[in-house]
Amino acid sequence: MTIKTIGIIGGGQLGRMLAMAASRLNFRTVILEPQPDSPALQLANRQIVGAYDDEAALAELAGACDVVTYEFENVPVGAARFLEALKPVHPPAGALEVAQDRLTEKTFLNRAGIPTADFRAVDSQADLEAALAEFGGSGVLKTRRLGYDGKGQMVFRPGNDPAGAYDRLGAVPLILESFVDFAGEVSVIAARGADGTVRCYDPAENVHRNGILFTSTLPAAISSETAEAARTAAERLLAALDYVGVIGIEFFVARDGGLIANEIAPRVHNSGHWTEAACVISQFEQHIRAVAGLPLGDPVRHSDCVMQNLIGDEIHDVARWAAEPDVLVHLYGKTEPRPGRKMGHVTRLTGRR
Amino acid sequence: MTIKTIGIIGGGQLGRMLAMAASRLNFRTVILEPQPDSPALQLANRQIVGAYDDEAALAELAGACDVVTYEFENVPVGAARFLEALKPVHPPAGALEVAQDRLTEKTFLNRAGIPTADFRAVDSQADLEAALAEFGGSGVLKTRRLGYDGKGQMVFRPGNDPAGAYDRLGAVPLILESFVDFAGEVSVIAARGADGTVRCYDPAENVHRNGILFTSTLPAAISSETAEAARTAAERLLAALDYVGVIGIEFFVARDGGLIANEIAPRVHNSGHWTEAACVISQFEQHIRAVAGLPLGDPVRHSDCVMQNLIGDEIHDVARWAAEPDVLVHLYGKTEPRPGRKMGHVTRLTGRR
Repeated sequence: MTIKTIGIIGGGQLGRMLAMAASRLNFRTVILEPQPDSPALQLANRQIVGAYDDEAALAELAGACDVVTYEFENVPVGAARFLEALKPVHPPAGALEVAQDRLTEKTFLNRAGIPTADFRAVDSQADLEAALAEFGGSGVLKTRRLGYDGKGQMVFRPGNDPAGAYDRLGAVPLILESFVDFAGEVSVIAARGADGTVRCYDPAENVHRNGILFTSTLPAAISSETAEAARTAAERLLAALDYVGVIGIEFFVARDGGLIANEIAPRVHNSGHWTEAACVISQFEQHIRAVAGLPLGDPVRHSDCVMQNLIGDEIHDVARWAAEPDVLVHLYGKTEPRPGRKMGHVTRLTGRR
Repeated sequence: MTIKTIGIIGGGQLGRMLAMAASRLNFRTVILEPQPDSPALQLANRQIVGAYDDEAALAELAGACDVVTYEFENVPVGAARFLEALKPVHPPAGALEVAQDRLTEKTFLNRAGIPTADFRAVDSQADLEAALAEFGGSGVLKTRRLGYDGKGQMVFRPGNDPAGAYDRLGAVPLILESFVDFAGEVSVIAARGADGTVRCYDPAENVHRNGILFTSTLPAAISSETAEAARTAAERLLAALDYVGVIGIEFFVARDGGLIANEIAPRVHNSGHWTEAACVISQFEQHIRAVAGLPLGDPVRHSDCVMQNLIGDEIHDVARWAAEPDVLVHLYGKTEPRPGRKMGHVTRLTGRR
């Protein structure tokens, strides 16, 4: 069937940039988002104000569009399943299920032949202590669900006392991941079309600050073998998920160049924002193309670049950034610059390819 | 004062692309346009539905924004003057006055030291015949006002009978322009900031079909001296107009490489659409920066390219274009593909610089 209108769950900056890309291909967009006048609405045709799990709102969304997608990985799986009965949903609800639980995610990655850190399920303080003993006293304890940007995590080094840690993280299902002594972090942004075609952008090298992405740099300082391994992992994962759309996969790079998958985001990803400045087809357009059944674009990169997030008050540096040559500024229409809030990003082109 | 909202007169594709660029810099946009649900509205925050010369609508626009701009050169000068009393208007109403009348335009260009074809005012059939005699029987007869895309024009070659021509073009003020035997057509897109800074994109080589722009190619097949002359002309013109914003200037290129200015458009211009694919800062963002008082962007071009308009039914070729590598597709959200109607454009990157 012909896609005319795309439904997008989530009205933040990613939904906004998806709506912008959709408009350039003549697709109309309808946003489902509880917050009125969301950043995405400014670029979309319409917003349904409702909770992500409100079945009346979901049914209204399905009735108003030809295909549904989403901008964040914590869309309730039940909502995605509900929608799947009414309209095509890309990426599939199954990808949400995998991504929403770190234990499921790492298990799935390993089964797809993609290495991760060693991990143990932690459902009690005793589980934690047993797992820490196995890992030599070190590891990263994380909630299995709903953690992001470094929240809901505790780091253990040998000698740290784990007493009370299980309760401090809320006595919810946890995972202990073995500590990875990595040389750097990279991510790959990949897309899969409905026909199974996969296209990968070049891996970006990422630096985090305070648990939030600070910069993505292209090219990453990795060997061509490591870059190829990232692409291979993306292809395996996308096929295993029977995926349609853009995905972001974050890796640690071990000192020997080996890749250890850290987490997946079944959506467009902050570490792919550089694509709008350095590629003909951005990750946002690529996602829209996949979801709408258009051919995927060529992910070729015409320039080297560095993307930097503008967090909180950094939004006030805009005039300075705008004065610099070869810098593309992209702001999200958010009025209140709260600490830690992603307000925009800048991409500096650093050389032609 | 701080600019938060930009008013845009005109709701077509140029207003749409201006609204998109504005949103990325956190400016809100209000469109004034008589046609409801205009292409621009889809990307803007609000539309005031009203005629361009409706003073109540103009006052509402002025009240809703901090600065006013426009997407087309036939905004009534009286409307621009009315707005200038209420809010800053960029480009200035004076630029509209110059651009709206071919006689005023060519006179102004010549006074600014920019060569044009020879021309004569034609206010009667007798004027026409006298002017044709002076030009050896050849020339292009045009309405002085409201002609575009080749409409309202007649070409005379020696031996053509001009009888009745003045009446056939409506017995309105006309201009006869001497025939220019040109080797090609180029345009330069330039911007001037409120501080007088001028930035020029590289000249594009343009091909028209049926009087409508067909392709713009970068680089143009012109010498560096000719390119420099185009930039110099732009700088002179922008200073003479005390201009703020983006302007498009079309030139004929004579067989000796000399430039003959053909017409100016005091707005973003179709022959600058390639900038969104081949430059960091597009002409749309450049215009918004100028109008909002931000520093102008670097107009450097990272790639060679060819922009092609999608006219009328060519909109149906979108899937084919989307399947080609290195092609950026941009559609305007127009539902009815009427013959001659600009529905979108594609830009193919043809090489790195």
